[in-house]
Amino acid sequence: MTQTMTASALTANAFAPFGEVLEVSGPPTKLINAGKCGRWHDRALLDFADARAGISIFRSECFALPYEFDLVERHPEGSQAFIPMSADPFLVIAAPDENGRPGPPVAFLTSGAQGINLRRNVWHGVLTPLGGPGLFAVIDRIGTTPNLEEYRYPEPFRVTA
Amino acid sequence: MTQTMTASALTANAFAPFGEVLEVSGPPTKLINAGKCGRWHDRALLDFADARAGISIFRSECFALPYEFDLVERHPEGSQAFIPMSADPFLVIAAPDENGRPGPPVAFLTSGAQGINLRRNVWHGVLTPLGGPGLFAVIDRIGTTPNLEEYRYPEPFRVTA
Repeated sequence: MTQTMTASALTANAFAPFGEVLEVSGPPTKLINAGKCGRWHDRALLDFADARAGISIFRSECFALPYEFDLVERHPEGSQAFIPMSADPFLVIAAPDENGRPGPPVAFLTSGAQGINLRRNVWHGVLTPLGGPGLFAVIDRIGTTPNLEEYRYPEPFRVTA
Repeated sequence: MTQTMTASALTANAFAPFGEVLEVSGPPTKLINAGKCGRWHDRALLDFADARAGISIFRSECFALPYEFDLVERHPEGSQAFIPMSADPFLVIAAPDENGRPGPPVAFLTSGAQGINLRRNVWHGVLTPLGGPGLFAVIDRIGTTPNLEEYRYPEPFRVTA
Protein backbone atom coordinates (compact mmCIF):
# COMPACT_ATOMS: atom_id res chain seq x y z
CA MET A 1 0.00 0.00 0.00
CA THR A 2 1.34 3.42 -0.90
CA GLN A 3 1.90 5.73 2.05
CA THR A 4 1.32 9.41 1.48
CA MET A 5 3.66 11.97 3.03
CA THR A 6 3.77 15.75 2.92
CA ALA A 7 6.90 17.69 1.98
CA SER A 8 7.67 20.49 4.41
CA ALA A 9 9.71 23.64 3.86
CA LEU A 10 13.42 22.93 4.16
CA THR A 11 14.94 24.53 7.25
CA ALA A 12 18.35 24.12 8.86
CA ASN A 13 16.81 22.77 12.05
CA ALA A 14 14.59 20.21 10.37
CA PHE A 15 17.45 19.07 8.13
CA ALA A 16 20.07 18.92 10.92
CA PRO A 17 19.89 15.12 11.35
CA PHE A 18 20.86 14.68 7.70
CA GLY A 19 23.24 17.52 6.88
CA GLU A 20 23.44 21.24 6.27
CA VAL A 21 21.26 23.67 4.33
CA LEU A 22 23.43 25.88 2.11
CA GLU A 23 21.75 29.25 2.22
CA VAL A 24 21.96 32.81 3.40
CA SER A 25 20.70 32.99 6.98
CA GLY A 26 21.46 35.59 9.59
CA PRO A 27 24.17 38.21 9.06
CA PRO A 28 27.13 37.40 6.81
CA THR A 29 30.33 36.14 8.41
CA LYS A 30 32.01 39.09 6.76
CA LEU A 31 31.54 41.67 4.08
CA ILE A 32 33.95 41.68 1.16
CA ASN A 33 34.38 43.57 -2.11
CA ALA A 34 34.07 47.02 -0.54
CA GLY A 35 30.93 46.01 1.30
CA LYS A 36 29.06 44.89 -1.80
CA CYS A 37 29.21 41.15 -1.08
CA GLY A 38 28.48 39.07 2.00
CA ARG A 39 30.30 35.83 2.73
CA TRP A 40 28.52 33.15 4.79
CA HIS A 41 31.59 31.14 5.60
CA ASP A 42 32.17 27.40 5.52
CA ARG A 43 28.60 26.11 5.72
CA ALA A 44 29.06 22.43 4.91
CA LEU A 45 30.68 19.55 6.72
CA LEU A 46 32.72 18.04 3.91
CA ASP A 47 33.75 14.55 4.94
CA PHE A 48 35.55 12.08 2.72
CA ALA A 49 36.85 8.70 3.76
CA ASP A 50 39.64 8.70 1.25
CA ALA A 51 40.39 10.07 -2.18
CA ARG A 52 39.38 13.73 -2.52
CA ALA A 53 36.58 16.20 -3.12
CA GLY A 54 35.64 17.33 -6.59
CA ILE A 55 33.01 19.38 -8.39
CA SER A 56 30.79 17.63 -10.92
CA ILE A 57 27.80 18.91 -12.86
CA PHE A 58 24.51 17.01 -12.81
CA ARG A 59 21.62 17.61 -15.17
CA SER A 60 18.44 15.81 -14.28
CA GLU A 61 14.99 15.48 -15.73
CA CYS A 62 12.40 17.37 -13.71
CA PHE A 63 9.68 15.75 -11.64
CA ALA A 64 6.26 16.84 -10.43
CA LEU A 65 4.34 16.44 -7.20
CA PRO A 66 2.81 14.13 -6.18
CA TYR A 67 6.03 12.15 -6.56
CA GLU A 68 6.17 8.44 -5.92
CA PHE A 69 9.33 6.57 -4.89
CA ASP A 70 10.53 3.43 -3.21
CA LEU A 71 14.30 3.78 -3.68
CA VAL A 72 16.80 5.54 -1.43
CA GLU A 73 20.58 5.40 -1.50
CA ARG A 74 23.62 6.43 0.49
CA HIS A 75 27.33 7.01 -0.03
CA PRO A 76 29.49 5.40 2.67
CA GLU A 77 32.66 7.11 1.47
CA GLY A 78 31.66 10.73 1.53
CA SER A 79 29.35 13.69 1.97
CA GLN A 80 27.53 15.03 -1.09
CA ALA A 81 26.49 18.64 -1.66
CA PHE A 82 23.88 19.70 -4.24
CA ILE A 83 23.99 23.32 -5.41
CA PRO A 84 21.13 24.23 -7.74
CA MET A 85 22.31 26.39 -10.66
CA SER A 86 18.86 27.92 -11.09
CA ALA A 87 16.49 29.53 -8.59
CA ASP A 88 14.02 26.64 -8.79
CA PRO A 89 12.89 24.48 -5.88
CA PHE A 90 13.82 20.84 -5.64
CA LEU A 91 12.53 18.00 -3.54
CA VAL A 92 14.78 16.54 -0.85
CA ILE A 93 14.07 13.10 0.57
CA ALA A 94 16.12 11.73 3.45
CA ALA A 95 15.77 8.97 6.00
CA PRO A 96 17.37 8.11 9.33
CA ASP A 97 19.43 4.94 9.55
CA GLU A 98 17.97 2.14 11.63
CA ASN A 99 20.51 -0.63 12.06
CA GLY A 100 21.85 -0.40 8.53
CA ARG A 101 18.50 0.17 6.85
CA PRO A 102 16.60 3.38 6.24
CA GLY A 103 13.79 4.22 8.63
CA PRO A 104 10.69 6.24 7.66
CA PRO A 105 11.64 8.89 5.06
CA VAL A 106 10.98 12.61 5.33
CA ALA A 107 10.57 15.09 2.47
CA PHE A 108 11.47 18.75 2.15
CA LEU A 109 10.92 21.43 -0.46
CA THR A 110 13.69 23.94 -1.02
CA SER A 111 12.92 27.63 -1.36
CA GLY A 112 14.74 28.14 -4.65
CA ALA A 113 17.65 29.78 -2.81
CA GLN A 114 18.94 26.73 -0.97
CA GLY A 115 21.40 23.94 -1.60
CA ILE A 116 22.05 21.01 0.67
CA ASN A 117 25.00 19.04 1.93
CA LEU A 118 24.12 15.46 2.78
CA ARG A 119 26.30 14.09 5.50
CA ARG A 120 28.35 11.01 4.66
CA ASN A 121 26.33 7.80 4.68
CA VAL A 122 22.93 9.50 5.05
CA TRP A 123 20.04 7.77 3.24
CA HIS A 124 18.47 10.01 0.61
CA GLY A 125 16.33 9.99 -2.50
CA VAL A 126 17.68 10.58 -5.99
CA LEU A 127 17.97 14.11 -7.32
CA THR A 128 14.48 15.48 -7.93
CA PRO A 129 14.31 19.00 -9.37
CA LEU A 130 10.76 20.30 -9.65
CA GLY A 131 11.36 22.82 -12.41
CA GLY A 132 13.95 24.72 -14.41
CA PRO A 133 16.93 23.28 -16.24
CA GLY A 134 17.66 20.63 -13.58
CA LEU A 135 21.27 21.76 -13.41
CA PHE A 136 23.28 21.24 -10.21
CA ALA A 137 26.88 21.48 -9.11
CA VAL A 138 27.69 18.51 -6.91
CA ILE A 139 30.60 18.49 -4.48
CA ASP A 140 31.33 14.93 -3.54
CA ARG A 141 34.05 12.35 -3.21
CA ILE A 142 36.08 11.57 -6.30
CA GLY A 143 37.35 8.01 -6.03
CA THR A 144 37.47 4.70 -7.81
CA THR A 145 35.33 2.43 -5.61
CA PRO A 146 31.52 2.32 -6.00
CA ASN A 147 30.57 4.29 -2.86
CA LEU A 148 26.89 3.49 -3.32
CA GLU A 149 24.36 1.51 -1.31
CA GLU A 150 20.73 1.30 -2.42
CA TYR A 151 17.61 0.26 -0.59
CA ARG A 152 14.11 -0.34 -1.90
CA TYR A 153 11.26 0.08 0.57
CA PRO A 154 8.77 -2.81 0.43
CA GLU A 155 5.97 -0.30 -0.29
CA PRO A 156 6.23 2.98 -2.21
CA PHE A 157 5.70 6.46 -0.76
CA ARG A 158 3.82 9.30 -2.42
CA VAL A 159 5.04 12.81 -1.63
CA THR A 160 2.58 15.68 -1.86
CA ALA A 161 3.14 19.41 -1.43
CA MET B 1 42.80 57.20 -19.44
CA THR B 2 40.14 54.53 -19.26
CA GLN B 3 40.64 51.62 -21.63
CA THR B 4 37.54 50.01 -23.07
CA MET B 5 37.36 46.24 -23.46
CA THR B 6 34.66 43.91 -24.73
CA ALA B 7 33.43 40.91 -22.77
CA SER B 8 33.27 37.76 -24.86
CA ALA B 9 31.19 34.64 -24.32
CA LEU B 10 32.77 32.35 -21.77
CA THR B 11 34.11 29.15 -23.32
CA ALA B 12 36.29 26.41 -21.89
CA ASN B 13 39.01 27.10 -24.44
CA ALA B 14 39.14 30.83 -23.89
CA PHE B 15 39.13 30.37 -20.12
CA ALA B 16 41.73 27.58 -20.07
CA PRO B 17 44.64 29.82 -19.04
CA PHE B 18 42.73 30.80 -15.89
CA GLY B 19 40.77 27.73 -14.84
CA GLU B 20 37.80 25.59 -15.73
CA VAL B 21 34.27 26.37 -16.88
CA LEU B 22 31.76 24.36 -14.84
CA GLU B 23 29.06 23.45 -17.33
CA VAL B 24 27.41 20.71 -19.29
CA SER B 25 29.38 20.12 -22.47
CA GLY B 26 29.50 17.01 -24.61
CA PRO B 27 27.98 13.74 -23.45
CA PRO B 28 27.74 13.02 -19.73
CA THR B 29 30.47 10.93 -18.10
CA LYS B 30 27.71 8.59 -17.04
CA LEU B 31 23.97 8.38 -16.66
CA ILE B 32 22.60 7.79 -13.17
CA ASN B 33 19.18 7.60 -11.52
CA ALA B 34 17.73 5.13 -14.02
CA GLY B 35 18.93 7.23 -16.92
CA LYS B 36 17.17 10.40 -15.78
CA CYS B 37 20.31 12.28 -14.72
CA GLY B 38 23.67 12.88 -16.37
CA ARG B 39 26.87 13.31 -14.40
CA TRP B 40 29.68 15.37 -15.89
CA HIS B 41 32.38 14.14 -13.58
CA ASP B 42 35.09 16.03 -11.72
CA ARG B 43 35.26 19.21 -13.76
CA ALA B 44 37.41 21.44 -11.54
CA LEU B 45 41.03 21.36 -10.51
CA LEU B 46 40.69 21.91 -6.77
CA ASP B 47 44.09 22.91 -5.42
CA PHE B 48 44.73 24.00 -1.84
CA ALA B 49 48.14 24.75 -0.35
CA ASP B 50 47.10 23.73 3.12
CA ALA B 51 44.02 23.68 5.29
CA ARG B 52 41.00 22.29 3.42
CA ALA B 53 38.19 22.99 0.99
CA GLY B 54 34.82 24.29 2.12
CA ILE B 55 31.56 25.57 0.73
CA SER B 56 30.55 29.13 1.51
CA ILE B 57 27.62 31.19 0.26
CA PHE B 58 28.20 34.62 -1.27
CA ARG B 59 25.49 37.18 -1.94
CA SER B 60 26.59 40.16 -3.96
CA GLU B 61 25.01 43.31 -5.24
CA CYS B 62 24.41 43.23 -8.97
CA PHE B 63 26.29 45.31 -11.50
CA ALA B 64 25.51 46.60 -14.98
CA LEU B 65 27.50 46.95 -18.17
CA PRO B 66 29.43 49.01 -18.98
CA TYR B 67 31.35 48.12 -15.82
CA GLU B 68 34.41 50.03 -14.74
CA PHE B 69 37.17 48.56 -12.56
CA ASP B 70 40.80 48.98 -11.63
CA LEU B 71 41.14 46.31 -8.92
CA VAL B 72 42.01 42.65 -9.34
CA GLU B 73 42.98 40.11 -6.71
CA ARG B 74 44.33 36.61 -6.33
CA HIS B 75 44.47 33.85 -3.72
CA PRO B 76 47.93 32.28 -3.37
CA GLU B 77 46.69 29.49 -1.12
CA GLY B 78 43.96 27.97 -3.21
CA SER B 79 41.62 27.64 -6.16
CA GLN B 80 38.19 29.26 -5.94
CA ALA B 81 35.04 28.02 -7.66
CA PHE B 82 31.93 30.18 -8.17
CA ILE B 83 28.63 28.36 -8.72
CA PRO B 84 25.73 30.70 -9.50
CA MET B 85 22.54 29.68 -7.68
CA SER B 86 20.35 31.31 -10.30
CA ALA B 87 20.34 31.06 -14.09
CA ASP B 88 21.62 34.60 -14.53
CA PRO B 89 24.83 35.60 -16.31
CA PHE B 90 27.76 37.08 -14.47
CA LEU B 91 30.85 38.89 -15.60
CA VAL B 92 34.22 37.18 -15.24
CA ILE B 93 37.40 39.22 -15.31
CA ALA B 94 40.80 37.52 -15.24
CA ALA B 95 44.36 38.46 -16.07
CA PRO B 96 47.59 36.60 -16.76
CA ASP B 97 50.45 37.01 -14.33
CA GLU B 98 53.47 38.91 -15.58
CA ASN B 99 56.32 38.67 -13.10
CA GLY B 100 54.10 38.92 -10.05
CA ARG B 101 51.77 41.57 -11.43
CA PRO B 102 48.64 41.18 -13.54
CA GLY B 103 48.99 41.74 -17.26
CA PRO B 104 46.17 43.04 -19.48
CA PRO B 105 42.81 41.76 -18.22
CA VAL B 106 40.21 39.88 -20.23
CA ALA B 107 36.46 39.73 -19.64
CA PHE B 108 33.88 37.01 -20.22
CA LEU B 109 30.12 36.77 -19.95
CA THR B 110 28.66 33.52 -18.67
CA SER B 111 25.66 31.96 -20.36
CA GLY B 112 23.53 31.63 -17.24
CA ALA B 113 24.32 27.91 -17.09
CA GLN B 114 28.01 28.14 -16.23
CA GLY B 115 30.12 28.37 -13.12
CA ILE B 116 33.87 28.82 -13.02
CA ASN B 117 36.80 27.47 -11.08
CA LEU B 118 39.67 29.91 -10.86
CA ARG B 119 42.99 28.20 -10.60
CA ARG B 120 45.09 28.93 -7.54
CA ASN B 121 46.85 32.28 -7.69
CA VAL B 122 45.08 33.50 -10.85
CA TRP B 123 44.38 37.24 -10.98
CA HIS B 124 40.65 38.00 -11.20
CA GLY B 125 38.07 40.69 -10.66
CA VAL B 126 35.64 40.71 -7.76
CA LEU B 127 32.34 38.87 -8.06
CA THR B 128 30.12 40.73 -10.54
CA PRO B 129 26.65 39.24 -11.06
CA LEU B 130 24.70 41.05 -13.77
CA GLY B 131 21.22 40.16 -12.55
CA GLY B 132 19.18 37.96 -10.27
CA PRO B 133 19.67 37.43 -6.54
CA GLY B 134 23.48 37.53 -6.75
CA LEU B 135 23.68 34.24 -4.87
CA PHE B 136 26.69 31.94 -5.36
CA ALA B 137 28.13 28.86 -3.74
CA VAL B 138 31.88 29.24 -3.46
CA ILE B 139 34.23 26.31 -3.04
CA ASP B 140 37.54 27.59 -1.79
CA ARG B 141 40.21 27.11 0.81
CA ILE B 142 39.17 27.35 4.43
CA GLY B 143 42.14 28.52 6.47
CA THR B 144 43.30 31.11 8.95
CA THR B 145 45.85 33.14 6.97
CA PRO B 146 44.77 36.02 4.67
CA ASN B 147 45.26 34.31 1.29
CA LEU B 148 44.62 37.54 -0.59
CA GLU B 149 46.75 39.74 -2.81
CA GLU B 150 45.27 42.81 -4.47
CA TYR B 151 46.48 44.95 -7.34
CA ARG B 152 45.17 48.24 -8.63
CA TYR B 153 45.87 49.06 -12.26
CA PRO B 154 47.18 52.60 -12.75
CA GLU B 155 44.28 53.31 -15.13
CA PRO B 156 40.76 51.89 -14.99
CA PHE B 157 39.15 49.60 -17.57
CA ARG B 158 35.61 49.82 -18.86
CA VAL B 159 33.96 46.54 -19.89
CA THR B 160 31.20 46.62 -22.48
CA ALA B 161 29.00 43.84 -23.80
